[in-house]
Amino acid sequence: MADNKFVYIFGNNETEGKNSMKDLLGGKGANLAEMSNLGIPVPVGFTITTEVCTLYLKNGQYPPGFEEHIDNAIKQLESTTKKNFGDLKNPLLLSVRSGARVSMPGMMDTVLNLGLNDDSVVGLAAKTGNERFAYDSYRRFLTMFANVVLDIDHEKFESTLSAMKKDKNVKQDNDLEVEDLKELVEKFKTIIKDEAGKEFPQNAREQLQMAIDAVFGSWNNQRAKTYRKLNGIPGEWGTAVNVQSMVYGNMGETSGTGVAFTRDPATGEKRFFGEYLINAQGEDVVAGIRTPQPIKALKNTMPKVYDQLVDIYMKLEDHFKDMQDIEFTIEKGKLFMLQTRTGKRTAAAAIKIATEMVEEGLIDKHTALLRVEPEQIDRLLHPNIDPTSAYEVMATGLPASPGAAVGEVVFTAEHAEEMAKNGEKTILVRAETSPEDIGGMNASEGILTVRGGMTSHAAVVARGMGKPCVAGCGEITIDIKEKVFNVGDYTVKEGDIISIDGSTGNVILGKVDLILPGVTDELETILTWADEVRTLKVRTNADTPHDAEVARDFGAEGIGLCRTEHMFFGEDRIPAVREMIMAEDIESRKLALKKLLPMQREDFIGIFKAMEGFPVTIRLLDPPLHEFLPNHEEVMEKLWELESSDASQEEMDRVKKIGERIEYLKEINPMLGHRGCRLGITYPEIYEMQAQAIIEAACELSKDGMKIVPEIMIPLVSHVKELEFVKKHITSIFESVMEEMGIKLDYMVGTMIELPRAVLTADQIAKEAEFFSFGTNDLTQTTFGFSRDDAGKFLPFYLESGILEDDPFAVLDQDGVGQLVKIGIEKGRATRPDIKIGICGEHGGEPKSVKFGHNVGLDYVSCSPFRVPIARLAAAHAVLENKQ
Amino acid sequence: MADNKFVYIFGNNETEGKNSMKDLLGGKGANLAEMSNLGIPVPVGFTITTEVCTLYLKNGQYPPGFEEHIDNAIKQLESTTKKNFGDLKNPLLLSVRSGARVSMPGMMDTVLNLGLNDDSVVGLAAKTGNERFAYDSYRRFLTMFANVVLDIDHEKFESTLSAMKKDKNVKQDNDLEVEDLKELVEKFKTIIKDEAGKEFPQNAREQLQMAIDAVFGSWNNQRAKTYRKLNGIPGEWGTAVNVQSMVYGNMGETSGTGVAFTRDPATGEKRFFGEYLINAQGEDVVAGIRTPQPIKALKNTMPKVYDQLVDIYMKLEDHFKDMQDIEFTIEKGKLFMLQTRTGKRTAAAAIKIATEMVEEGLIDKHTALLRVEPEQIDRLLHPNIDPTSAYEVMATGLPASPGAAVGEVVFTAEHAEEMAKNGEKTILVRAETSPEDIGGMNASEGILTVRGGMTSHAAVVARGMGKPCVAGCGEITIDIKEKVFNVGDYTVKEGDIISIDGSTGNVILGKVDLILPGVTDELETILTWADEVRTLKVRTNADTPHDAEVARDFGAEGIGLCRTEHMFFGEDRIPAVREMIMAEDIESRKLALKKLLPMQREDFIGIFKAMEGFPVTIRLLDPPLHEFLPNHEEVMEKLWELESSDASQEEMDRVKKIGERIEYLKEINPMLGHRGCRLGITYPEIYEMQAQAIIEAACELSKDGMKIVPEIMIPLVSHVKELEFVKKHITSIFESVMEEMGIKLDYMVGTMIELPRAVLTADQIAKEAEFFSFGTNDLTQTTFGFSRDDAGKFLPFYLESGILEDDPFAVLDQDGVGQLVKIGIEKGRATRPDIKIGICGEHGGEPKSVKFGHNVGLDYVSCSPFRVPIARLAAAHAVLENKQ
Repeated sequence: MADNKFVYIFGNNETEGKNSMKDLLGGKGANLAEMSNLGIPVPVGFTITTEVCTLYLKNGQYPPGFEEHIDNAIKQLESTTKKNFGDLKNPLLLSVRSGARVSMPGMMDTVLNLGLNDDSVVGLAAKTGNERFAYDSYRRFLTMFANVVLDIDHEKFESTLSAMKKDKNVKQDNDLEVEDLKELVEKFKTIIKDEAGKEFPQNAREQLQMAIDAVFGSWNNQRAKTYRKLNGIPGEWGTAVNVQSMVYGNMGETSGTGVAFTRDPATGEKRFFGEYLINAQGEDVVAGIRTPQPIKALKNTMPKVYDQLVDIYMKLEDHFKDMQDIEFTIEKGKLFMLQTRTGKRTAAAAIKIATEMVEEGLIDKHTALLRVEPEQIDRLLHPNIDPTSAYEVMATGLPASPGAAVGEVVFTAEHAEEMAKNGEKTILVRAETSPEDIGGMNASEGILTVRGGMTSHAAVVARGMGKPCVAGCGEITIDIKEKVFNVGDYTVKEGDIISIDGSTGNVILGKVDLILPGVTDELETILTWADEVRTLKVRTNADTPHDAEVARDFGAEGIGLCRTEHMFFGEDRIPAVREMIMAEDIESRKLALKKLLPMQREDFIGIFKAMEGFPVTIRLLDPPLHEFLPNHEEVMEKLWELESSDASQEEMDRVKKIGERIEYLKEINPMLGHRGCRLGITYPEIYEMQAQAIIEAACELSKDGMKIVPEIMIPLVSHVKELEFVKKHITSIFESVMEEMGIKLDYMVGTMIELPRAVLTADQIAKEAEFFSFGTNDLTQTTFGFSRDDAGKFLPFYLESGILEDDPFAVLDQDGVGQLVKIGIEKGRATRPDIKIGICGEHGGEPKSVKFGHNVGLDYVSCSPFRVPIARLAAAHAVLENKQ
Repeated sequence: MADNKFVYIFGNNETEGKNSMKDLLGGKGANLAEMSNLGIPVPVGFTITTEVCTLYLKNGQYPPGFEEHIDNAIKQLESTTKKNFGDLKNPLLLSVRSGARVSMPGMMDTVLNLGLNDDSVVGLAAKTGNERFAYDSYRRFLTMFANVVLDIDHEKFESTLSAMKKDKNVKQDNDLEVEDLKELVEKFKTIIKDEAGKEFPQNAREQLQMAIDAVFGSWNNQRAKTYRKLNGIPGEWGTAVNVQSMVYGNMGETSGTGVAFTRDPATGEKRFFGEYLINAQGEDVVAGIRTPQPIKALKNTMPKVYDQLVDIYMKLEDHFKDMQDIEFTIEKGKLFMLQTRTGKRTAAAAIKIATEMVEEGLIDKHTALLRVEPEQIDRLLHPNIDPTSAYEVMATGLPASPGAAVGEVVFTAEHAEEMAKNGEKTILVRAETSPEDIGGMNASEGILTVRGGMTSHAAVVARGMGKPCVAGCGEITIDIKEKVFNVGDYTVKEGDIISIDGSTGNVILGKVDLILPGVTDELETILTWADEVRTLKVRTNADTPHDAEVARDFGAEGIGLCRTEHMFFGEDRIPAVREMIMAEDIESRKLALKKLLPMQREDFIGIFKAMEGFPVTIRLLDPPLHEFLPNHEEVMEKLWELESSDASQEEMDRVKKIGERIEYLKEINPMLGHRGCRLGITYPEIYEMQAQAIIEAACELSKDGMKIVPEIMIPLVSHVKELEFVKKHITSIFESVMEEMGIKLDYMVGTMIELPRAVLTADQIAKEAEFFSFGTNDLTQTTFGFSRDDAGKFLPFYLESGILEDDPFAVLDQDGVGQLVKIGIEKGRATRPDIKIGICGEHGGEPKSVKFGHNVGLDYVSCSPFRVPIARLAAAHAVLENKQ
C-alpha cells in the first residue's frame, strides 16, 4: 500500500509522517508531522504527497482512488474536530497550503477558511455566537480563493474594501460593521462571477478540489518555473499540499496569531524574538495592516500561553538543533503551532548562533561551519547601508565591489586626490578606470563606472582595496566638459552628494546612513575551525606591502599574484616608465630601466618582508605599454595648447613624438595584443630588469637571515617556447646575480595558464613550468570570447533572461572554463606530477568557484585580501560537503 | 656482414647500391648507383653510408674496421681506373660530396681534385701533358679544401685570385699563365697555414679522411640544424659521403661540363633543356663566371656526345618517371653523368609535366596529382612580377593576398573609387581597412596596410576579391594630412606609382612589369582528377552573386560562409543601416530594418540563383554595430565645420547625436564585444529581418521551381542557450512566412564554432545545431589570445626566432586550435551523429590545414573563391598521402 498512499494524517494520535520525509511531504508537511510527534499542538490535518503532484502533472489526472483517500482523511479530521466538512450548522473549515521540499516563491501559497458558503457562514455565526467573525472569515476566504485559485487580481477586492471603508468613514478593516461585511461578501461574489465567468462554488468538497488543483497547477506556472531554473530545483520534485483544520486567531481578545524566532535573526542573540497580533488571522501580521506587539508583551496578556510557547520553542530548537522560525495561532486561549522551519538570519547572526550552539553542545564544529554561508562573511567586512533608512535609487549597475560609500561626485582621479588632501570624501565617477587612476581610486570612498564588468579594472582594483564599487552602470552618461552626469531624469553635478552600494549595484541620490560591522571574535572562531578542516591553501593577490599585511591579517598564506605593473604607476616611477617606452633604441631603453631597477628592488623587499615565511608569486609585467602613456586626446590638447603659446620647438617636438608613439602603440583589441610575455620576448630587457630587482631583493633579505623562495610567474603564455625563451633569460640573470652576491637561493619559474592554448598544451608547458596559476579572468574572456570591459552591453540581459545563470566573471563557469581548468591540471600533472597549481583570478574568492577548485585538486586559490576569509570558509565547506 | 657494410661501390660492374636505398646511401649516392645499374656511364666511386655518419656522431669515432673498408674501396677504384691514390706519377684524384636522404643546404657540399699535392701535381702535369690543367686543378682543390674542410673564408682566396688577375692584367681565370697558377698555389698554401695554423696536408689519405670527417661534422653545424628544424628532418637520419674518381671537363676544347633538365622547368614543355661550358669544371657553370652555351649548341660541337646525352635523359626519365635535373662532364670527348635528381619546376611546369606524363603513360593520375603542390596553383591565378625585371623594394609586409599590382598611391577608399571611374589604377594605402572601405578596395588594383595580420579585414576581403594585398607593413607611417607615407628614407606622395607583391609582401617603388598566367587546360585536368579522388567537399566564402559565380567557375560546391554584413555597406543600404543603429526605440529600429528587408531579399535571391543546386550557408549579422558608423574623429570634424558655418541647430544636433552614439558603442576589445549572436539576442529584430529576407527569397525562387535549402548560421555562440534563443525566433519567422506563402521548404539552423567554450560544450550545442562550421580565424584568436589586427607587433619576431613555426592565422595550429577542432567534432557527433561539419576560416584554403580537415573527418572546407582550386587539390592529396 506504501506505493499508493496519497495522504498522510497529522496532528492527532495517528500522525503518519515525520521530519525525514521532506521529499514526500514537503518541508511544511514534514515539520507539521514532526511537531505532532513531539507532542506539540498543531491543528489536525493531512498532507497530500509530492508523488500525487508528479502523477497529476504528468498524466493530467489523479491516480485511481485518490478522491477516496481525501474523503477518508476528511472523515478523520471530522471525527477529531467533531465538526463536519460542508456542514451548515457546525462546519469544519480548512486551510490549504502548498509546501515543496524547499520554500518556493512563485507558487500558490495559502487559502484559509475553505468550506464556507452562503449557508455555513450562518451556521458558523450561530455556532460561535460571533456573526462578525463568521462574515469576516467569509470575506477573507472569498478574496483568497478568488486570487489564488481563480487567478483574479487581488486589487479588485482591495479597492472594493477601500471604497467601503471610505464610504463608511472607518480606518481599520476591524471597524466595519457586520452589515458592511455582509454587503462586502455580496460584492465579492459579484466580482468573482464577473471575472471568472461563473458563480463562486458553494460546495465545500468542490472548493477543496479546486484548491488542490490550483496548488498542483501552480508548480508549473511561469514564475515557479523561472524560480526553479534560476535555483537549480528539478521540475520532477513536485509540491505537496497541506490541508489543515482551521484555528482562529480572530475570535476575540483571547485569540491571536504571531510569528517568532528562537533566537534574534539580526544579531544572533539567544532570546525569544517575535511579534503577535490579538484578534487577527495570520496574513494580518505579514500584511502589516496593524502594528504587532513584541512577543514579550504576551507574557503579560496571556502568561500561560507565553510559557507554553517558550517551552515549545526550546523543545523545537533542541530537536532541530537550529534556530527556528515559527508561526502560531491562539484560539480562545488555546495555542496551536502552524509552522516551524529553519530561520533565515543575517551574516552576523549566523556566525553568533553557530558558535554559541557549539558552546551549548547542540551541534559540532563541522555543523557550525556549514551553518555560515561563505558569501555572507563579505557583508561583515564592509560598511553597509542601514537597512532601516529610506533612499532614492537613481540607477543600478553591477555590484562590483561590496560595501556602501557616500561622497561628493568627482570626475577625475586628480580631483579625488586633491579633495582627499582636504579631508573631503568623494565618489569617483568615470566612464571606465585605467591604471593611471589608481591614486584617485584610493583617495575616494567608492568608485562608479559607466563601462566594465565584474572583472574590469575598476572592479578588480576596488576589491583589492576593499573599496565599494558599482561598475558598468550603462544608464549613466557623463558629460566631462560640463562636469555633470545624467541618468534618467536626474542630472548630478560635480560636488553633489551621492551614495553607492557595491553589494547591490545601487546608485543613490544623496547621503544614506551606513553601518559598519566589525570582525568579531565569533568570526575568528569560525575561521579557525575552517582552517582545521580545509586542505586547500588560501593566498592573496597583493601588489603592495600594505595589501600584503591586510591579507595576512585576514589569514592569507602567501601571495598568489603580485602584479608588478601596479608598481610602475607611482608618481616617482611613471617618468622613467615613459622614458623606457619612448626609447628609440635598446640602449636608451636599458638606461631608463636602470632608473626603475632600485625602485622595483625596494618594492620587492617590502613585499617579501610583509609576507615573511610565506611564498610570494611575482608576475612579470603584463599590460600593454600604451596603458602607461597618457591618452591620445590629452596629448593632442596639450599640443594645441603649446602651439598657441610660445613654447619652444623642442618642447613641441617632444610632445608630438609622444603622440606618435601612442598612435603607434594603439591596439584594436589590447586584451589580445602586445602584452604579457609577448612584451617580455620582444623587449627582453624589461623582464631582465624585473628579474634582477627580484633576485637582488631576495639575496639582500637572505643576507639578513630571511628565507625567501621567489616564484616568478610569466603571464600570457600560449606556447611552451615562449616560456622557454623567457625562462632562459631569467635563469641567467638569477644565476649571475647570485654568483656575484655569493648567495645561493631556491627559486621557481612558472606560468599563468590563462589562454585556451596554454591549457591544451599544458603537458608541453609543464616541461618548463614549475607551477601553474590559472588566470581565470583572462581564461574566461578568451573561452567565452567576452571582453570583460565590454560585456556590460549584453551580459545583464543574458543574466536576466536566464541565458547565463551567473556572471562568468564572478562565478567560475564550470561547464566551459572549468572544463579547461580540469584539462590543464590533468595535462600538467601528467608531465610533472608534483607541479603546484593554483587559481589567481577573481574567482579565487568566490565560494562556488573555491569549492570547484578544491574538488578538481588545486593546491591553492588566491584572491583579493578582503575575500581571504570567504575563501577559507568555502574551502572548509568543500571538504565537509564532500563528506556528506 | 650487412650490419657492418660501411661502403657501397658504384660505377663499375660491381655496383652494390640501387635507387631504393636512399635511406642508407643518401639521394645522390643511390641515384649514382642506379645510373650505374642502368649502364649509364658514371665515374667509379663509393658511398659511405648514413649509418657510419650516425655511429660517428654518436660515439665520436668510427666503427671498427671502417678504415679498412675505405682502403679496400680505394683499391677497387685504383684497379678500375688504373690510377693510384697518392701516387706521384699517375695519381687517382677524387671528389668528395655529402648526400643526405633529402637535399640539405647548410651542409658541406663538394671537394674536387682531392689527392693532389706538391708532388703529384707534377706527375699529373706530366701524365696529362697539360701543366696548366694540373695547376689549375691544384689551386681549385686548395680553395675548396680550405673552405669546406678547414672552414677558411672563401673570400681570402678570391681576393688573392682577383689581385693576381689585376696584376697580370687579365680578365678570365683561364687567361692566367701556368707560372701565375703556380704562384697562386704557393700563396694559397700560405693562406691555409696562416688561417688553419698548420700546413696544408700533403698526404692523400689524410686529405680524404679530413674531408669525410668534415662532411659528417657538417651534419651537425648550426645552419644544418636550423634547416632540419624548420623542415622537420630528423637529426638521426645522418648524411652519406660520396667519394668518386675525378673526371675533368677542364682538359681542353673536347672537354666540358653542364647541367640540364629533361623538360623545361619553367614551362614544362617536353624539350631537352640546359646549358654547358667547354673546358670548365662543374662549379664554373654554377658560379656564372663565364656565360654557358645552351645545350642545343652541343649538337653542333659534339654531335655524338649530344646524342648520347639525349639517349641518357630519355632513359632516366623513363626509369625515374619524372623530370630529371642532371649534371654531366665530358672528359676529352667521353661523357660521364655526375648526378641525376628530380628537377625543381614552376607551378605551370609541374602541371604540364604531370598531365603530359599521364598521357605518355609514364605515370598514373594519382602520381600526377601528387606531383603538383596545391600551394603552387595560387601563383597561376594571379598576376606576378616578371622574374626578369629589376626593382627597388622599399619595405616588406605580410604576403596577405597573392599576386602583384601596380598603381598610383591613394589614401582613402573614396579617392580610389573616383580614380577608378576615370579609369586610373590605384593602390589603396591605409593604416588598416574597415568594412566601409570595401568599395575602394574593390576599385583599387591592390591594398597595402600598416597594421593587421594574415586574417585582418584587408587580408580577408582582398583574398575574397582575388586582389593583391600586403598587410601589416609596420615600417610605413602614413601622414594622412600631408597625403604622404614614409618608409625608411623614402617619402611617397599621393599619386606616386608603387607596386606591391602580395605573394612576397614586397612594397616596391615605381612600376614593375607583370605577367598574367591563365588557367590552363592542364590545370583543369589536374583539378578534375583531384575531384575524382577527394572525399572532402570544397565550398566557398562568398558574399555576392559575382563572388559566388567566380567560385563556381573555380569548382566550389556551395557557399560555406555568406557574410551578410557585407551587404549592409552598399551605398543604397548604409543610410538605412545607420538609421537602424541610431534608432532610440524598438519601433523606429524596426522601421529602419523594414527598409533593408527588400534589399536583403534581393541579395539572397541573387546568391541563391548563382549557387543553384548547391547548399548556401548564410551567416547572420556578425560585426559590432560601430563598424557601420563613421569614425568618431570624422564626426567631430564635421561638427566643428558645422559650428563655424551657418548650419541649423537641428543639423548640429543630428551630428552631435551620431557622435554620442559612436561614443556609446565604442568598445575596448571589439573582437570580444557586442557582436555576433549577442547582437541578435539583444536586438532580435535584426536577425528577424534577415530571417525574413532569407525565407522570402527562398520561397520566391521555390515558386519558380528552384530547389533551395537555406542553411542559417548563427555566429559567436558560446552557450547552447544563445543558439536556442535565436533559433526559436528564426524558426518562428520561417514558419510564419512559409505558411503565408503556402510553401513548405526544408532549412537548417546551425552555428559557427569559433569560441573555445562552444567547442567544450559542443555536445550541448549539437542538441540545437544541425550543422557546425568552425570559424578558425576567431578560434585562433581566442585560443592563442592573439588579436589578428594587433599581432603584427610580435608575430614576425615569433616566426623569425622559431617560437612559432607558422603564422597560425595562415596555417592551422594543429597542436592547439586543431585539438579544439577534434574535440568539437567528437562532442558534436556524440550528440548528433550525422551533424554536418565544416571549416569556414581562412584555413579552409590552406593545404596543410585542408589535409588536417580531411583527416579529422570534416565534411567540407570553405575558402575564398581563388583558393577553391588549391583546396580541391589539397583534399585529393590528403586521400592519396594516407594511402601511401
